[in-house]
Amino acid sequence: MRNLHLLLLGLVWITLCLPASAADKDPNLVLIKARQGEMEIRSMYATPLFMMARGKMDYDAEKAQALANNLLALTKVDMGMAWAPGTGNDKYPKVSDALPDIWSTYPAIAEKGKDYSDAVNGLAKVAGNGLDGLRSGVGDLGQSCKSCHDEFRQKE
Amino acid sequence: MRNLHLLLLGLVWITLCLPASAADKDPNLVLIKARQGEMEIRSMYATPLFMMARGKMDYDAEKAQALANNLLALTKVDMGMAWAPGTGNDKYPKVSDALPDIWSTYPAIAEKGKDYSDAVNGLAKVAGNGLDGLRSGVGDLGQSCKSCHDEFRQKE
Repeated sequence: MRNLHLLLLGLVWITLCLPASAADKDPNLVLIKARQGEMEIRSMYATPLFMMARGKMDYDAEKAQALANNLLALTKVDMGMAWAPGTGNDKYPKVSDALPDIWSTYPAIAEKGKDYSDAVNGLAKVAGNGLDGLRSGVGDLGQSCKSCHDEFRQKE
Repeated sequence: MRNLHLLLLGLVWITLCLPASAADKDPNLVLIKARQGEMEIRSMYATPLFMMARGKMDYDAEKAQALANNLLALTKVDMGMAWAPGTGNDKYPKVSDALPDIWSTYPAIAEKGKDYSDAVNGLAKVAGNGLDGLRSGVGDLGQSCKSCHDEFRQKE
């Protein structure tokens, strides 16, 4: 009986928590927002690292390492489901900048993903060990960002 | 000499990669977008779990476990920096739904964060072990979402 109560309570919470819009709206929009959200988080962590590397912000070993560690932790989240076929900017113009080439040239994008992951792993090894190491690490990271954006993101 | 070349190459990439807008615009907007982005990712993973719990989607043990594992991996990313003081909806109306109470009642929000993390950890232990476990786990998760939103998010 207690279990039944807990189950019912759980279902009430579930009903309250699931946004009414989530079930109604195009589920692909959830995916697009999630992958754009990941890019925003990457940007939050990477921007101060780029600024330190460019001398626009004082180098702080502890902060640099923490930022890199968070970029690394984010790579452990599998965002694959956010990149479902049929969610490119041919189907979702003005909503997504993702070019259909992502899917038509698959698995080329997966190589880019691996390059990014490698760059973040490398960065996390050096970010806290001095400005030269940081610069080398963010150089690789920047190259990885740019390479994927050049090929698979709509130019503005 | 080779190191100098690599360094210069790195700086070029850094310059190309750092969005021109990132340095110019209000840096708090990067934080707000990043934390909203995290919520979008949570939503992407949690929505199918809620739908399975409600019988709106067939229960799939492997999928449920993978979704829960990704929610768990996301909790390993420290989003603290995204919640800087002065970024509530008193300062950023229409941009953020974050109530200033987040900061004025600190560390109450940290308790909510811990509840969320506990709920995700619990969910990850049960999500793949059958529908009853999943329902219990997402019940706790939903309660945690709702509790924090009720207190700290602007009502629509």
